[in-house]
Amino acid sequence: MENQEATSRFLRACHRQPVDATPIWLMRQAGRYMSEYRELRKSYGILEIIKNPELACEVTMQPIHAFDLDAAIIFADILPPLEGMGLSLEFVKGEGPLIHNPIRSAADVEALRTPQPEESLGFTLEAIKLARRELESRGVPLIGFSGAPFTLACYAIEGGSSRNYRYAKSLMMSEPALWHRMMAKFSVIVGRYLLAQARAGAQVLQIFDSWVGALSPDDYRQMAMPYTQQAISIAKQASVPIIHFGTNTNGMLELIRNAGGDVIGVDWRIDLDVAWGRLGPHVAIQGNLDPVALFASWSELTDRAGRILGLAGGRPGHIFNLGHGILPETPVDNVRRLVDFVHEYSSRQANNQTGEEYDR
Amino acid sequence: MENQEATSRFLRACHRQPVDATPIWLMRQAGRYMSEYRELRKSYGILEIIKNPELACEVTMQPIHAFDLDAAIIFADILPPLEGMGLSLEFVKGEGPLIHNPIRSAADVEALRTPQPEESLGFTLEAIKLARRELESRGVPLIGFSGAPFTLACYAIEGGSSRNYRYAKSLMMSEPALWHRMMAKFSVIVGRYLLAQARAGAQVLQIFDSWVGALSPDDYRQMAMPYTQQAISIAKQASVPIIHFGTNTNGMLELIRNAGGDVIGVDWRIDLDVAWGRLGPHVAIQGNLDPVALFASWSELTDRAGRILGLAGGRPGHIFNLGHGILPETPVDNVRRLVDFVHEYSSRQANNQTGEEYDR
Repeated sequence: MENQEATSRFLRACHRQPVDATPIWLMRQAGRYMSEYRELRKSYGILEIIKNPELACEVTMQPIHAFDLDAAIIFADILPPLEGMGLSLEFVKGEGPLIHNPIRSAADVEALRTPQPEESLGFTLEAIKLARRELESRGVPLIGFSGAPFTLACYAIEGGSSRNYRYAKSLMMSEPALWHRMMAKFSVIVGRYLLAQARAGAQVLQIFDSWVGALSPDDYRQMAMPYTQQAISIAKQASVPIIHFGTNTNGMLELIRNAGGDVIGVDWRIDLDVAWGRLGPHVAIQGNLDPVALFASWSELTDRAGRILGLAGGRPGHIFNLGHGILPETPVDNVRRLVDFVHEYSSRQANNQTGEEYDR
Repeated sequence: MENQEATSRFLRACHRQPVDATPIWLMRQAGRYMSEYRELRKSYGILEIIKNPELACEVTMQPIHAFDLDAAIIFADILPPLEGMGLSLEFVKGEGPLIHNPIRSAADVEALRTPQPEESLGFTLEAIKLARRELESRGVPLIGFSGAPFTLACYAIEGGSSRNYRYAKSLMMSEPALWHRMMAKFSVIVGRYLLAQARAGAQVLQIFDSWVGALSPDDYRQMAMPYTQQAISIAKQASVPIIHFGTNTNGMLELIRNAGGDVIGVDWRIDLDVAWGRLGPHVAIQGNLDPVALFASWSELTDRAGRILGLAGGRPGHIFNLGHGILPETPVDNVRRLVDFVHEYSSRQANNQTGEEYDR
């Protein structure tokens, strides 16, 4: 373990070691709610930024310059790996991602390529190297990430966002053998990509299974979990902590945990202590403020953040985060103050004070 | 209790009494997946059908004529009560519901009216009377329904469907006193509407809290649950069973149960036996097949339906249903066969057979 890792709050929390204050970072912390990012977006599209390592590094650093965050996350998106697989990806203004040739047939599945990440995603690996260098002096660790096999497959089949995941789930239910062949490809793509990011310098890896809450526990167990496990087992070769995040998974949290990960990310739809109780003592936990709380008044926001810290009870292994990505119009001032509040409130907790007299 | 009620499988299951076979109905069973309905929609808009008691009765009966369902549900929508409150509602083709004057200010809340359902929703009460008459000869009970206060309020504030419920939750978090005044109005509207439906002839009432899964357990407890309780306590004056349904509620199922209802509806994101275990022995349970399963092959569909019946274990108080509404393009043949399969498989269970040798 490097010296920096031993002293970083975030990495210590990933290992469930005691910290001086609860670490905090925010999913999608580099993004649209920041004026610096919106300014850059006037000149560049999302994919242009992602594919330009200097720009991706710059965006990665924007929230680090602005706030006292305990981790950076490389600016990227979960969808670019689909391009290397042979899918044509576009971010349509105001509509979100669109895949022009979604997977709909056996031939489409057979045609999926599994290139090495160095070949198809070199820009993000390069951005990681650049960002790591900039972060080093600040002692802020860098997170690499990927979508989980199920969530990536859903995008690839639906061709974009979806309400009911009808095409993806129909393929899964109607052609299980084809589904398994396809998922094996996604698990290799995801596992290798995560591993390559760690080798490029990412000190923690997060696997986003944002859409897995569309599945029943039994479907998850049979049709998605083995591929998340496979991806994680490949990524584990790098020996960095892995955060495993999903939403709407409160009917099957134990399965999510069993799929792997040192830290389990939970959404706000469950009390943190209840979630941690179900997950058990052998994993750290990340979460779980409702992203909309950042639009509330300062006293309301601190009530909510303080409640979550109270439910975590200062137990080693809590990483404060939102329960899902930060929303585009979030007031920047509330982000700054939340980050500071989490540090100050939790360091009082760590000093065995109740924190209740914290001056809001 | 009327004679019919003592013998209907559906009503017996609501009371957790033993049945000869598990009753089944499907949320949104009257609707777009049926050609009879699509035919009628060529001549009439959704609101036109809802506001014409003869047409609403006709659509209510369509799935009853087509399938061996154990309950009918009055054809209506959760949104018309908003019109009586002073909101302007339109169903935009291909876009879904739109409210032209959404609630965004204190003045908007104060302006909300709480008319008697006989005054503002007489058409649905009339449709219930007509449908009840037609159903009587078949011994099929009729369900009346309403959106829950939280879900209705969300529509009224967001002005339509929403991804993040940012406006609704911001109002809730930032102006709690205003929120409580508003919710008090919704609970009166919902409670009286349910009660009026029962008095018009509905033998069971379902309260749909489709969007409540957007809330954290703590927000639910403080900001939504008291109003669902209030609505249910008004509806209870009619002494008919109440089904309380939500989605994405698996982080707070116990609270949903505590809010009231004789039957708790659960989505497919949790195993039925786990859900029932958490809900405890004093409620019946409704669910919980993934609606997409109806697009699968017949053997796959029966595997899934059989698995749910197996998890219910023939215990009195299970009503078979989907975990959410049936999807528009669902193959009608699979609906017919599913209904028959549930009856046949569960009647074998009831006869103490394992059901495993059921001929698929």
